[in-house]
Amino acid sequence: MELFETMIQHTSVRSFTDQKLSAELQEQLVLAAQSASSSNFLQACSLIQVTDNIKRKAIETIAKFPVDNGTNGQFYIFVADLNKHAQVLQQQNLSTEHLSTMESLVVAIVDTALAAQSMAVYAESVELGICYVGGIRNDLFKMKDLLDLPKFTYPVFGLFVGYPAEKNEVKPRLPKTAILNTNTYQPFTPAMLADYDEVTTTYYLERSTNMQATSWSEKVRRHFAQARRSNTIDFLKKQGFVF
Amino acid sequence: MELFETMIQHTSVRSFTDQKLSAELQEQLVLAAQSASSSNFLQACSLIQVTDNIKRKAIETIAKFPVDNGTNGQFYIFVADLNKHAQVLQQQNLSTEHLSTMESLVVAIVDTALAAQSMAVYAESVELGICYVGGIRNDLFKMKDLLDLPKFTYPVFGLFVGYPAEKNEVKPRLPKTAILNTNTYQPFTPAMLADYDEVTTTYYLERSTNMQATSWSEKVRRHFAQARRSNTIDFLKKQGFVF
Repeated sequence: MELFETMIQHTSVRSFTDQKLSAELQEQLVLAAQSASSSNFLQACSLIQVTDNIKRKAIETIAKFPVDNGTNGQFYIFVADLNKHAQVLQQQNLSTEHLSTMESLVVAIVDTALAAQSMAVYAESVELGICYVGGIRNDLFKMKDLLDLPKFTYPVFGLFVGYPAEKNEVKPRLPKTAILNTNTYQPFTPAMLADYDEVTTTYYLERSTNMQATSWSEKVRRHFAQARRSNTIDFLKKQGFVF
Repeated sequence: MELFETMIQHTSVRSFTDQKLSAELQEQLVLAAQSASSSNFLQACSLIQVTDNIKRKAIETIAKFPVDNGTNGQFYIFVADLNKHAQVLQQQNLSTEHLSTMESLVVAIVDTALAAQSMAVYAESVELGICYVGGIRNDLFKMKDLLDLPKFTYPVFGLFVGYPAEKNEVKPRLPKTAILNTNTYQPFTPAMLADYDEVTTTYYLERSTNMQATSWSEKVRRHFAQARRSNTIDFLKKQGFVF
């Protein structure tokens, strides 16, 4: 029951103390990530821990996330990685044709996300705080240069792990009726949206920091009002994927 | 520490007992999934639990996974879902242009995988067994028909959850040196591969069921020797995504 309580209290942490993660804990975090399920046991995920201050600063600029603040937290870049598999094929002069597909990319992204979430859940179970940093995708080409990413790799997100200095309130999720259906997809109705907007408007107005007059649907509209990371396809093509 | 031990003992379970999941446990599984991180709080994931025997049989045929065996296990289809967001935009006559992108699809796939892995880790922490069923992607168009999936949705995998009848041995993961680097990507070397092939050859020869003379690299070669789910792009285009 304790794990369940921890999980439903999840919030992203953006402010960390100076407490270092022990070597043992760092080891466990990586093992937890590696123990996640992997499609056909391909293990299409690599981690790059960024400790170099210059690289952290550069990533902070790209991601607009203060990765440099938590100097004693660990910062892992989770890379969807089919480069290892390409090497296996190339060593025997085999084609990478079936590796460079959308399906393979999905496999690698899913493997990567499963590994990260195992790390995240384990981290929170030992009272660490975590934050996913999708902002690294703001400049995929610079991330590639910074981390020397080879063909058939795609940096999906960062995961910052450290001891939380403060935690935000838990955000109210979509109601279960809106996300869980039985046997058939049920559309999200205007009434469900109106109800949820009411819940989220109250949440954003009443939370203790960063109060805003907004709602979930307003956030969604703003999110999709502009082009976001529109060179993703170009990047993935240069990395060897075919669309 | 107990959670860590559970996590590193993870193996997929393909054989379940008849023990039913209590209503409370089912509720917790869904809440655990919903509590995972979500990119920009978009919550771009829906779950469809498949209880209908005809649909389960149809999915069993598509996925080549015995979802019909564990009649008292729960079977959830995890759907990357931007349909809700498209509805929010369309209610105000706004364009879905920036929602139909590769970046948005990545966000939805990642949200979906994080939610699933939270469910999976929680399930295993209460001694349930789980198996991801990527095989649902073998026929995306049939899955769409079976579950009435609307535009801007993509069924990523199933997750079967039940009480395990038997568990396989834990598979030896890639060595930490092959998946964790510091500050820069380090190629997977032929020596690393040779070492790992030795480890996996021993594992496949000595495991108690389904013994095989093979190795990790042999599995990788076979996996990529054929086209896999090669209509994924067509499917995603029909669902509204633009590549």
